[in-house]
Amino acid sequence: MAGTPRRAARRRLPLPLLCLLLQGATAILFAVFVRYNHETDAALWHGGNHSNADNEFYFRYPSFQDVHTMVFVGFGFLMAFLQRYGFSSVGFTFLLAAFALQWSTLTQGFLHSFHGGHIHVGVESMINADFCAGAVLISFGAVLGKTGPAQLLLMALLEVALFGINEFVLLSLLGVKDAGGSMTIHTFGAYFGLVLSRVLYRPQLEKSKHRQGSIYHSDLFAMIGTIFLWIFWPSFNSAPTALGDGQHRTVLNTYYSLTASTLSTFALSALVGRDGRLDMVHIQNAALAGGVVVGTASEMMLTPFGALAAGFLAGTVSTLGYKFFTPILESKFKVQDTCGVHNLHGMPGVLGALVGVLVTGLATHEAYGDGLQSVFPLIAESQRTATSQAMFQLFGLFVTLTLASVGGGIGGCLLKLPFLDAPPDSQCYEDGVYWEVPGEDEDEAQGPLKEEERDTQA
Amino acid sequence: MAGTPRRAARRRLPLPLLCLLLQGATAILFAVFVRYNHETDAALWHGGNHSNADNEFYFRYPSFQDVHTMVFVGFGFLMAFLQRYGFSSVGFTFLLAAFALQWSTLTQGFLHSFHGGHIHVGVESMINADFCAGAVLISFGAVLGKTGPAQLLLMALLEVALFGINEFVLLSLLGVKDAGGSMTIHTFGAYFGLVLSRVLYRPQLEKSKHRQGSIYHSDLFAMIGTIFLWIFWPSFNSAPTALGDGQHRTVLNTYYSLTASTLSTFALSALVGRDGRLDMVHIQNAALAGGVVVGTASEMMLTPFGALAAGFLAGTVSTLGYKFFTPILESKFKVQDTCGVHNLHGMPGVLGALVGVLVTGLATHEAYGDGLQSVFPLIAESQRTATSQAMFQLFGLFVTLTLASVGGGIGGCLLKLPFLDAPPDSQCYEDGVYWEVPGEDEDEAQGPLKEEERDTQA
Amino acid sequence: MAGTPRRAARRRLPLPLLCLLLQGATAILFAVFVRYNHETDAALWHGGNHSNADNEFYFRYPSFQDVHTMVFVGFGFLMAFLQRYGFSSVGFTFLLAAFALQWSTLTQGFLHSFHGGHIHVGVESMINADFCAGAVLISFGAVLGKTGPAQLLLMALLEVALFGINEFVLLSLLGVKDAGGSMTIHTFGAYFGLVLSRVLYRPQLEKSKHRQGSIYHSDLFAMIGTIFLWIFWPSFNSAPTALGDGQHRTVLNTYYSLTASTLSTFALSALVGRDGRLDMVHIQNAALAGGVVVGTASEMMLTPFGALAAGFLAGTVSTLGYKFFTPILESKFKVQDTCGVHNLHGMPGVLGALVGVLVTGLATHEAYGDGLQSVFPLIAESQRTATSQAMFQLFGLFVTLTLASVGGGIGGCLLKLPFLDAPPDSQCYEDGVYWEVPGEDEDEAQGPLKEEERDTQA
Repeated sequence: MAGTPRRAARRRLPLPLLCLLLQGATAILFAVFVRYNHETDAALWHGGNHSNADNEFYFRYPSFQDVHTMVFVGFGFLMAFLQRYGFSSVGFTFLLAAFALQWSTLTQGFLHSFHGGHIHVGVESMINADFCAGAVLISFGAVLGKTGPAQLLLMALLEVALFGINEFVLLSLLGVKDAGGSMTIHTFGAYFGLVLSRVLYRPQLEKSKHRQGSIYHSDLFAMIGTIFLWIFWPSFNSAPTALGDGQHRTVLNTYYSLTASTLSTFALSALVGRDGRLDMVHIQNAALAGGVVVGTASEMMLTPFGALAAGFLAGTVSTLGYKFFTPILESKFKVQDTCGVHNLHGMPGVLGALVGVLVTGLATHEAYGDGLQSVFPLIAESQRTATSQAMFQLFGLFVTLTLASVGGGIGGCLLKLPFLDAPPDSQCYEDGVYWEVPGEDEDEAQGPLKEEERDTQA
Repeated sequence: MAGTPRRAARRRLPLPLLCLLLQGATAILFAVFVRYNHETDAALWHGGNHSNADNEFYFRYPSFQDVHTMVFVGFGFLMAFLQRYGFSSVGFTFLLAAFALQWSTLTQGFLHSFHGGHIHVGVESMINADFCAGAVLISFGAVLGKTGPAQLLLMALLEVALFGINEFVLLSLLGVKDAGGSMTIHTFGAYFGLVLSRVLYRPQLEKSKHRQGSIYHSDLFAMIGTIFLWIFWPSFNSAPTALGDGQHRTVLNTYYSLTASTLSTFALSALVGRDGRLDMVHIQNAALAGGVVVGTASEMMLTPFGALAAGFLAGTVSTLGYKFFTPILESKFKVQDTCGVHNLHGMPGVLGALVGVLVTGLATHEAYGDGLQSVFPLIAESQRTATSQAMFQLFGLFVTLTLASVGGGIGGCLLKLPFLDAPPDSQCYEDGVYWEVPGEDEDEAQGPLKEEERDTQA
Repeated sequence: MAGTPRRAARRRLPLPLLCLLLQGATAILFAVFVRYNHETDAALWHGGNHSNADNEFYFRYPSFQDVHTMVFVGFGFLMAFLQRYGFSSVGFTFLLAAFALQWSTLTQGFLHSFHGGHIHVGVESMINADFCAGAVLISFGAVLGKTGPAQLLLMALLEVALFGINEFVLLSLLGVKDAGGSMTIHTFGAYFGLVLSRVLYRPQLEKSKHRQGSIYHSDLFAMIGTIFLWIFWPSFNSAPTALGDGQHRTVLNTYYSLTASTLSTFALSALVGRDGRLDMVHIQNAALAGGVVVGTASEMMLTPFGALAAGFLAGTVSTLGYKFFTPILESKFKVQDTCGVHNLHGMPGVLGALVGVLVTGLATHEAYGDGLQSVFPLIAESQRTATSQAMFQLFGLFVTLTLASVGGGIGGCLLKLPFLDAPPDSQCYEDGVYWEVPGEDEDEAQGPLKEEERDTQA
């Protein structure tokens, strides 16, 4: 009991201070640098010779809203599968993503849309900021339950900056195509998180083993996340592509790929399951791998069959990964990957980059016609051959893996800073550490975790 | 215990084999037949003289996404009302719909958009495939809890094909109007499922009676389904209609109809309830009947008042159906209708067809002006009078009821094949038969259903 | 037990009668007055010289659907935080909003779009009706758990009418700008509900104290509401604004404001919480204050920094309100505010009106260019200076507070009518009073509340 005041003081400060500090800093940077772009600013828009129907808003906002739903509802509830970590899963997703949106508006703005001393914002910067938030949440999935909110905010601070740099290297310097982010979002987010989780390895984590599983209702909450991610993934991959056939084709390919990964996930899950039973972990996650695996190639002329094949492969690899590789990852490589992001984002992301390499290498003037300019401008302008563009794509994957791993390593060291209030091994996957938690029924509605119990961790 | 290895082998195979077989078959057919249409293909789109804003994608994709949400979130969670069948409700919805999307792309493609040896796909084929998946899920509702996933996949295989044929007969051969599918989706899906459930009649089903109800939280999960179906139903009915006033009017009519069915459902539910109490089953289902009942007529000049009247009628009929007719359906007609699809889709679907007959018969050149061409092209071109079009509409209902019943009968026989692993009477409405199920709290998180208990069914 | 028949008769009638009466009345009024507008009517639309792409539907429907989701999913589930009141929260939201949509189509129609003896409806009337329903649901939040459905329908009847009048005075007579409804929706709805709750003050409410909190899962259901409200709030504020830069800018400002209110809510919640723990009530509610506070100003040239500052302020005020002011509101002012609408809608709404006054007063021709006409037509046409427009804005707030308070007072008296079946003090926050409630697990699935217990209240 003696520990209470000390612990209270220690805990009361890091999160509020960090929130206020970060919010203050971004607000100042917003005041100095961020301005409406010509489609958002009253004077600039009305100064132009446009019809209102030409405003980019009408072409991108419905897709943006789907992406926004995926980031906050999809990722948030997908991670709520843990029996005693629903508040943190949904709540920290909310906090992390809200901060990442502001901070990535700045970092991406400085790198991509900094003109005349100002960052110009509109619906496209909103989409890009949400994408960056998605990468942060993927990393969150790897360390879910083992990190506190102050740690997570620091992680986001670092990851958002590195995400912007990696994206800038790939898209602007290397001319790599990656609309749906197989590399920039999924591969980057996954390996950043996995390396970070490796650095934060907890040998005594089995102390919290009993809380690491799901219960019946928490699995249903997680399915809310899964289904919203699944249905809106076509919008995710198509949100930033060229208008017209580009968005249309990206949507179609993603839609087909997801149906195939769903079928292969159900098939494999029953095949490797005890007595042929399906495993909710596989359905919740691996069925989504079809969206990840066409992140790079879905805007290309992948063909509907190609989309099915890629999706099928991704669902298979991902399901087998959950069954066979995740245990090895922990026992051999000492990577504790709470949500299995290696299976949902890591391997399918790398696979998606390779599918992109393949489809890029097969690009011909005949297949794309005048549309080649939109998809592969450097090939259309004869600055590159399809093969050399494919090599650049492959190099982009290499850069991503390198930056993500280095970044995750640095992040891990940073998160070990002692004042960040990490949960003790015995209190991982437990909302009660960071939240006022009501009971499960009337009798215990005043909180089931007794004060003494809470303080054993101090 | 001796039964375990045998059961495991018996169970391990049907679902994976069927998934892989079906996925392999559709993939091959996709490779041979399915191609991007002129709005999705890079070369074809850029070869045309279009502005990107003309791409059909921008007019239909927001509606498509709403429909997609209804199919996967709406139907999935609506069926999660059962206390021990949430995984199966949401999960099998996911599996069935994913397969149906692929397979109906092919069947509808062969029947509707097969040109030059190829099926051409884009946002419209996506909408149509989702509609077909909706019909399959309606049938699923009739047999929910009493069929295994392998059975359901076979059902979908058959139903998707027949759905395509029925739709082709109605829309293409008979020139019937049915944008929101009162006939093609709701009536067809309901009576296919009901006849199928009749063939699979289980006289000993009361062995599972204790699992057939809801619990407090499962009713809230079901309300997620209800509300998403309710809010997006205007998009469902309007997704395939003519652009401009057609979509706009369809949305408005459906919106009004749903408000009226909601009010009549609350009124009737309290009126017939014990002590005037409301029944969640009515609210979850009958309130949606307003969307079904204007499936045919909402694109027509139904008038806002007509929409309210139709919705009110549907909510009333549906609520009374749940209260008084469902018990008779089981006791007298031996139809065990788990979700009451007869009340939500069957009767309101037939009613919707009849409302369509009425509003069609009243169509005049004066009321529609030059818009008559979009809604009733055959009347506008003087090939039919309004009365003869109305008769064709009525005949369409007859065709639908016939094909659905015959199809459901065949389907029922097919699903009796012994190797399909149907659940025993005592294990209906139980996730544990097909899923690894965690417990409700920490102590039983390793699974509440003991191995012996599981095997009593073998 | 003797009370049962009497109670049943007493209870069986008010809700059905009121539903049928109100539905009958609106249906008759619809038949007489409501007609499709020129974009929804087949003859009128095709008589005009339009392209289908010009139909307002395509510019407003995606936003409408987001608003629709907020009203039914957002408000409904946000209020489902109570442990034993989920059916009522979601169900009565459904009922109230469905009625409000019909009734406000009429009241707003008579006031805003009554031409040639008819009300003309389309996507804009749908958006406005949903806005009005939002205000009703805000008031519902103040009296949640303490009022029966018949009472709530009467409240909606009155509030919808007064909402229309207040909106008409502000927007049409005073020329006030309030696109996202800081005044017309949030301030009006909150103070109407708070005054109404004051009139219905229950000194013995602690008899139901044990049901007034949340349980673990109900807090997660509430987060579904929170997150959908949060992600779609940009659509809410922008749904009725001028097309083009107007909608685009409104979305962007709201998006930034919400990220800031989220960060400040987390910061403040941890700062004032016990041992630095976060409180779900704050996260569920105060994080949304950023949407409310820019309801008036988000269509203006608020600047991205201004949006962050406003959001930060709102999140702070709202969180502190929950912590410190709500208890005072009950103990000193005898206002029992179940959902804390004073903190989420009341104070942030008033603050939003004041932000609107400030930003209006700072409007210059230079900042808005030719866009001034869309945002401030009276300033652009030199009928008002920016300062006088700001004064009108302030006067609009005064009118709103007055009308809301008077209306809430009248409403409170009306709801005291004895035949409306209000729940007794000991049965507040209890679904069992109005719903057939299943148990929490198999054993009690026939209903946990015993008949005798139910009747003690009679």
